Amino acid sequence: MKFLRYGPTGAEKPGMLDANGTLRDLSAYMTDLSGDSLNPQNLASLAELEVANLPEVTGTPRIGPCVGGVGKFLAIGLNYADHAAESGMDLPQEPIVFSKATSCIIGPNDDVEIPRGSKSTDWEVELGFVIGKTAKYVTEAEALEYVAGYCVINDISERDFQIRRSGQWIKGKSADTFGPIGPWLVTPDEVGDPQDLALYLDVNGQRRQDGTTRTMHFTVAQIIAHLSQFMSLHPGDVIATGTPPGVGMGMKPPVYLKPGDVMELGVAGLGVQRQQVRAAG
Amino acid sequence: MKFLRYGPTGAEKPGMLDANGTLRDLSAYMTDLSGDSLNPQNLASLAELEVANLPEVTGTPRIGPCVGGVGKFLAIGLNYADHAAESGMDLPQEPIVFSKATSCIIGPNDDVEIPRGSKSTDWEVELGFVIGKTAKYVTEAEALEYVAGYCVINDISERDFQIRRSGQWIKGKSADTFGPIGPWLVTPDEVGDPQDLALYLDVNGQRRQDGTTRTMHFTVAQIIAHLSQFMSLHPGDVIATGTPPGVGMGMKPPVYLKPGDVMELGVAGLGVQRQQVRAAG
Repeated sequence: MKFLRYGPTGAEKPGMLDANGTLRDLSAYMTDLSGDSLNPQNLASLAELEVANLPEVTGTPRIGPCVGGVGKFLAIGLNYADHAAESGMDLPQEPIVFSKATSCIIGPNDDVEIPRGSKSTDWEVELGFVIGKTAKYVTEAEALEYVAGYCVINDISERDFQIRRSGQWIKGKSADTFGPIGPWLVTPDEVGDPQDLALYLDVNGQRRQDGTTRTMHFTVAQIIAHLSQFMSLHPGDVIATGTPPGVGMGMKPPVYLKPGDVMELGVAGLGVQRQQVRAAG
Repeated sequence: MKFLRYGPTGAEKPGMLDANGTLRDLSAYMTDLSGDSLNPQNLASLAELEVANLPEVTGTPRIGPCVGGVGKFLAIGLNYADHAAESGMDLPQEPIVFSKATSCIIGPNDDVEIPRGSKSTDWEVELGFVIGKTAKYVTEAEALEYVAGYCVINDISERDFQIRRSGQWIKGKSADTFGPIGPWLVTPDEVGDPQDLALYLDVNGQRRQDGTTRTMHFTVAQIIAHLSQFMSLHPGDVIATGTPPGVGMGMKPPVYLKPGDVMELGVAGLGVQRQQVRAAG
């Protein structure tokens, strides 16, 4: 199943796509795609619905981030061998964990802002996943049971803020609009093997990233097991799993985003995002 | 004014202390101490209440974290010159920003858990503050207008997870129970100068930290102005401002927490916390 959230920022409603790709309203079944609604058993039970009888959403509403009430927005650094190489960094011995401020989350097609003073705002297409039930000290073997679904994430990054502004990457990962999530939250049964998904990103129609989750260093299951040793994961937590090669920082010379640019990115089966870039006000 | 939240975990109610230190229920005026309720103007308007007429809370309820709905839990590293020295690190050129998972937040007197596999769980008394209205690109001169109030924070830290587990401090700062906040959210008018507050921490009755916010390297106003260049701060965001010397890692030889230990810590005018330490289940 493909779930999504639609409507104005901060007032999104839950919905799902039917077999024809028509958007149907789910408000009668949950107040939001957040918290306990994301429990995998709860989502699975919705498969029994006569989807065609749900109210059809007319027009072309804005699509919001595909999960609400995000408590933690975590991300894994340097998780593709070839991206680590282009970044001039060693492949880590265990997952590098950093966080993005939850206030950076936007819908998949909302505008992206270049922060004041930025000269190196960069793109990163990533496979994301959303936690569906509380995970603490879970093993790799059971880890995937905790996933509500998968989604596309653009882990937008300001390289100077990230690397040269006194440590800790969070400074370069958290500006408003730096976290487009969606369009869809796709349930695991429909995704199949999360370690065999193509993903790409174009800037102004030019292919910049073109990879596959087959070359991820730490798998989704390993990431969940690892994170759950350091903190509990809760329903609605979002994790971005790292980016394949092709970021602007890795180009020779580096190329960064500027106002007017358009990013288009996708992960196989999870839908496509499209963001217009503008300067912060 | 001194605000607080009381009741069972996850079901806390808003309250305040009257002139005699009696706990009064504020539920008729706000659903929670969170979001827009924290706007400084809104909090100031509560000063007009006939506090003595508010319902008295009887018994001795649990005290919860003094703010709900925390979107971001940020912290500043190495912000006291003498603590940087004991940690063997240089004083930073600009604030080191890291985050603690919001899922680590607990009440001021709740038990603290030593995570599985931990051998170096450490204490850090800190001056904390809570954002009261959205701050984006604010100047140092106007920064304090965005503060709802101040509170005590114990920024509990697992040193091995923080320093030797592939970068980024978040891994050592985020375990469940690593973020006691409260007991009170004290409004700025009552705190006076946030850069002139004594703070201390005892372990099993022995004084370990004994400092003053006079020796903070970056002030509260500078921290807000700095953070707001990198991300918007929203009502309910919590920021811990760094710890004075006296942490376990800095002792020779280092001393860390063990099950059965008791921490007691406070900041002048902001109340006292007391946590019993136990092993994670």
